[in-house]
Amino acid sequence: MKTEKIPEATIARLSVYSRYLTKLEKEGIVKISSGHIAKGISGNPAQVRKDFAYFGEFGTRGVGYKIVELNNNIKRILGLNKVWDTIIVGSGNLGTALAQYNGFSDRNFNVVSLFDNDVEKIGSNIGDIEIKSIDDLEGYLDNNEVEIAILTVPSSNAQTLANRLIAKGIKGILNFSPTVVNAPGDVQVRNIDLTVNLEILSFNITLNNKEE
Amino acid sequence: MKTEKIPEATIARLSVYSRYLTKLEKEGIVKISSGHIAKGISGNPAQVRKDFAYFGEFGTRGVGYKIVELNNNIKRILGLNKVWDTIIVGSGNLGTALAQYNGFSDRNFNVVSLFDNDVEKIGSNIGDIEIKSIDDLEGYLDNNEVEIAILTVPSSNAQTLANRLIAKGIKGILNFSPTVVNAPGDVQVRNIDLTVNLEILSFNITLNNKEE
Repeated sequence: MKTEKIPEATIARLSVYSRYLTKLEKEGIVKISSGHIAKGISGNPAQVRKDFAYFGEFGTRGVGYKIVELNNNIKRILGLNKVWDTIIVGSGNLGTALAQYNGFSDRNFNVVSLFDNDVEKIGSNIGDIEIKSIDDLEGYLDNNEVEIAILTVPSSNAQTLANRLIAKGIKGILNFSPTVVNAPGDVQVRNIDLTVNLEILSFNITLNNKEE
Repeated sequence: MKTEKIPEATIARLSVYSRYLTKLEKEGIVKISSGHIAKGISGNPAQVRKDFAYFGEFGTRGVGYKIVELNNNIKRILGLNKVWDTIIVGSGNLGTALAQYNGFSDRNFNVVSLFDNDVEKIGSNIGDIEIKSIDDLEGYLDNNEVEIAILTVPSSNAQTLANRLIAKGIKGILNFSPTVVNAPGDVQVRNIDLTVNLEILSFNITLNNKEE
């Protein structure tokens, strides 16, 4: 299996397929066609078959895919056959909201700790998760196997904190700070810039309004 | 100016450039070279010049760009020469966090109202913003000029609520519900699936670990 050749758009769709298949599993459904998967996620059947073919799932015409088996294969490819302990750095409104986001734990991302530099917050809990001092970040990462961190800090601190995380072995950063965070090649960073996304909307709306 | 040909990646970078230029403006800096812009946002100078050339900004070698003028041009292209009143549908943790996110108001996105179906929340305030009943959504949109909505509701309600927004003239939806929302061609939707982003990380980390 040449997973290194799977395009990112396919990986993103695999994630969406898998959540849909999980929903069907819970409903007790056993088999499904590519057409029904496509319909369930507002995609198209040819795309579904093409995406699955990357990892050798071809289904059988008229029979379809066995849901549990297919979903297990997708989850294994996405790395979801294990629990990923995850920390959140920055316990502002967004960090706090993400700590309580059920969508993560449903998919084996287990938020184990929040870190902040605000003495008023340190020691308090968000649900079951304790807010720890940012000074304890290195010590925590020395003693706990964590590979993924979510960064929700001001722009001015983002790169410094990313460097500290990377120095202690973090392999993936989901960055919500409104600045690009750089990392060496063996560390994955996904920058989610909320403002950029709104500005792409305002650009497109402005363009559409002009054309009308 | 043929703005319709600007690639989305360029639009996203324009947003980043503009925030950097705004920071420089506040520091009282008047001119800047493409090289310094690139350095400031961890980009490369040729890319900066290429992005600016889409809208006829060429700068002068050795002189550079006038920051205020350049930034005003970028903001006009992004549609930021006006205030965009924005509503948030869903006042859970994420909706509440986004209502308080300063990054939006800094860029002329003004969150004017939150909507929810939880009677315990309706009538209370998040900062200065009142949580209104989802039953009042249509009435509110009839009486207020709002073109952008941020959707932070459970998957099961996302499309229904998107349809209600679109029926009342919303032109852009930033969707955080973990499901794809569909819209007619004249309505812009950006789907930000937080879980997909984490799963792209777990996929890449798993792949890297295998290759080591």
